Amino acid sequence: MIKGFSKLSKLQKLQAIAGQYFEDPEAAVKEISSFWLPDEHKQQILDGFSENTISNYILPFGVAPNFLIDGRTYCIPMVIEESSVVAAVSNAAKFWHDKGGFHTRILGTVKVGQVHFMWQGNYETLYKLMPEIKERLIKDAAHITCNMEQRGGGVLDIDLLDFTDQEAEYFQLRVKFETCDSMGANFINSVLESFADSLVAFVLEYEDIPESYKDIKIIMSILSNYTPECLVEARVSCPVAELNCAKDIDPQQFAWKFEKAVRIAHIDPYRATTHNKGIFNGVDAVILATANDFRAIEACGHTFASRDGQYRSLSYCKVENDIFHFWIHLPLAIGTIGGLTSLHPLARRSMQLLGNPTARQLMGIIASVGLAQNFAAVRSLITTGIQKGHMKMHLTNILHQLEVPASLQDVAVEHFKDKTVSYSAVRAFLETAGPSTSM
Amino acid sequence: MIKGFSKLSKLQKLQAIAGQYFEDPEAAVKEISSFWLPDEHKQQILDGFSENTISNYILPFGVAPNFLIDGRTYCIPMVIEESSVVAAVSNAAKFWHDKGGFHTRILGTVKVGQVHFMWQGNYETLYKLMPEIKERLIKDAAHITCNMEQRGGGVLDIDLLDFTDQEAEYFQLRVKFETCDSMGANFINSVLESFADSLVAFVLEYEDIPESYKDIKIIMSILSNYTPECLVEARVSCPVAELNCAKDIDPQQFAWKFEKAVRIAHIDPYRATTHNKGIFNGVDAVILATANDFRAIEACGHTFASRDGQYRSLSYCKVENDIFHFWIHLPLAIGTIGGLTSLHPLARRSMQLLGNPTARQLMGIIASVGLAQNFAAVRSLITTGIQKGHMKMHLTNILHQLEVPASLQDVAVEHFKDKTVSYSAVRAFLETAGPSTSM
Repeated sequence: MIKGFSKLSKLQKLQAIAGQYFEDPEAAVKEISSFWLPDEHKQQILDGFSENTISNYILPFGVAPNFLIDGRTYCIPMVIEESSVVAAVSNAAKFWHDKGGFHTRILGTVKVGQVHFMWQGNYETLYKLMPEIKERLIKDAAHITCNMEQRGGGVLDIDLLDFTDQEAEYFQLRVKFETCDSMGANFINSVLESFADSLVAFVLEYEDIPESYKDIKIIMSILSNYTPECLVEARVSCPVAELNCAKDIDPQQFAWKFEKAVRIAHIDPYRATTHNKGIFNGVDAVILATANDFRAIEACGHTFASRDGQYRSLSYCKVENDIFHFWIHLPLAIGTIGGLTSLHPLARRSMQLLGNPTARQLMGIIASVGLAQNFAAVRSLITTGIQKGHMKMHLTNILHQLEVPASLQDVAVEHFKDKTVSYSAVRAFLETAGPSTSM
Repeated sequence: MIKGFSKLSKLQKLQAIAGQYFEDPEAAVKEISSFWLPDEHKQQILDGFSENTISNYILPFGVAPNFLIDGRTYCIPMVIEESSVVAAVSNAAKFWHDKGGFHTRILGTVKVGQVHFMWQGNYETLYKLMPEIKERLIKDAAHITCNMEQRGGGVLDIDLLDFTDQEAEYFQLRVKFETCDSMGANFINSVLESFADSLVAFVLEYEDIPESYKDIKIIMSILSNYTPECLVEARVSCPVAELNCAKDIDPQQFAWKFEKAVRIAHIDPYRATTHNKGIFNGVDAVILATANDFRAIEACGHTFASRDGQYRSLSYCKVENDIFHFWIHLPLAIGTIGGLTSLHPLARRSMQLLGNPTARQLMGIIASVGLAQNFAAVRSLITTGIQKGHMKMHLTNILHQLEVPASLQDVAVEHFKDKTVSYSAVRAFLETAGPSTSM
């Protein structure tokens, strides 16, 4: 056990770990610290985001250009380590650019928080008092909400929910918020903690509540990441005849197969999981690039996908009157001010690249990228299959890693045309092919 | 529209974008390229993971030391940009270290793939032929599966599923795989594409299938990220009396509140989403550090959370005979060989730091981190609330960003003790406090 670890300096931490866990402590310290930034101020900012940091973990920062969304052409920053996602999204953007591009619509921007509490009284008693309780809660939290209200946001509504049929004495305040361009987590949590204190005080002080019911036990007060009313739609459409997507398949066939593939993701949760996973390949790449929180976005999106009792596709497809329609509904509780967005140096550049969008605009951009990724993935799946592209990318990665000379790379690509690519298979191939071929 | 973008060099791409989208093109190129690695070989490897890369996006690489799992003490690499996650996990690890630590159990390692197809014939006809079909599929794919079989894996089972009650003519082969220490995506997809070809050929060639039913239309063949049978359990327990977790709450009260908080996350999807989101804060941090795919892990985990028709908590709590039990069931389809794990230089170091675990060991480690995060989050929520810690971290980030001298930082911390922290509020405070205080 390493004692007092958190109090060590960054280098001391790294050295302590290296000595204990690595066969080659010196080499480990050297390699791990090789990712530190020469700019100490920038490094300090990045280190401050988390704790016990010993290095910088790098993910590729790429861009998808020529993305037409609501009449404006964007170059979209994407942070993702998975091969072919940026390429696929870029291809889809190009395909739809000539067909009017992506169209988005905000269906809501409501955020949610909860105060969970146990109380021995009955629902009706408290429900009748709700107008007075609300007034008290709002008044006591005014010093927290005043700034947000000036920006056009604040508390929208407070509901009392009764869960006592499932758990004795369990009630909840469910609170709706508008947080404008900020994600609003700190604001919401501060308001909820104030609400909880005020609720306890109200019940204690209210004369008509009998002694035996004075005791409200707050379990916890915190925002909910499930925000089904913070929702955006992105949509593309074109005449079926324009779906010239692949060589061996005519537009009608393509539309038919595409619609079936999306339909299957509505029927079968096993397919829906992978279908939506692909959507989040695109979504999370922009979420990361703008320093939003991808765990929050993932949790919300997947809960939303299961809202009717079965986990289903987030995207929809319909062919009607020879027009192909493809769209997505995605809950996205994000921020464009506050949080890390303005603190992470590349996230700040991402925002500039996007023209410093509002939260509503960024919701539309992200949903469009998710839809583009889904279009590209389904297109690939119903035509050539995804293996071909994946294998080639994987082979390239391995060849780079092994520092194989260019001439031999071509031979390897040819050799693995019809074979499964793996690190050991490539090494085995190089051992036999290497010496003679490279001469 | 930028034409031929993907063919430009990295610097040309960056310059093209900067000229078009940034007010300060030169400064943008300078800052964005300042994150490039001096080591060109390493940079090339990282660039090869994705496409259109123009820079390196940095996430803090931290560690949680003193993590006792199945009798062995780990120092766990965590990549996350959210403040207090590594600190919370480290605290939880320390707390449970003296109480026997975390105990894990693999409940299954089955991975899943699907061949989706449309066929006009009836289920019974094909079902009766399944023994022959399986034989043919397995035989035709032998050149792909032989290596995996030598490692102890391969195809476990092939089922024919009938979905025609929901979509006319729609059937599916659902295939179970064992892929040992690899995530197995390439292997599974290659096998499935082979299976699809063989299925089409079988039906075409089989004499007793009439002419009108010869035509099987493959919609797509791909792995499923939903792997409920690739499942791990992590668990902690201790006498209730040892739950000395916070000042103002005795162990019995703490256990009672904790159990209620977890129970609430089973009752209410709004709470469950945030509860599980926290679990994935821990899980994804290790997934990223080991270069596994967090979108896949998220999609699977959340679908699993909704498997009974309502989205619920992934963790469970029970107090029985004065013993506090807390555990999680988490589906985790991961790999420790292949993929990017051995290609990403810091992921390789992460694996070494963990003692180069098998996939089964890594499943246990990750589930333990998820459980530790959940313990820390619920502990915080039911005691001091989370705002206190969050606000302090956020303030520190902003003060770093603004390069505030140490003396003034203390004044700011004191000032914001009971105030909501925001970038603008801190700036406003510094404008008034700054000159006089720093003198």
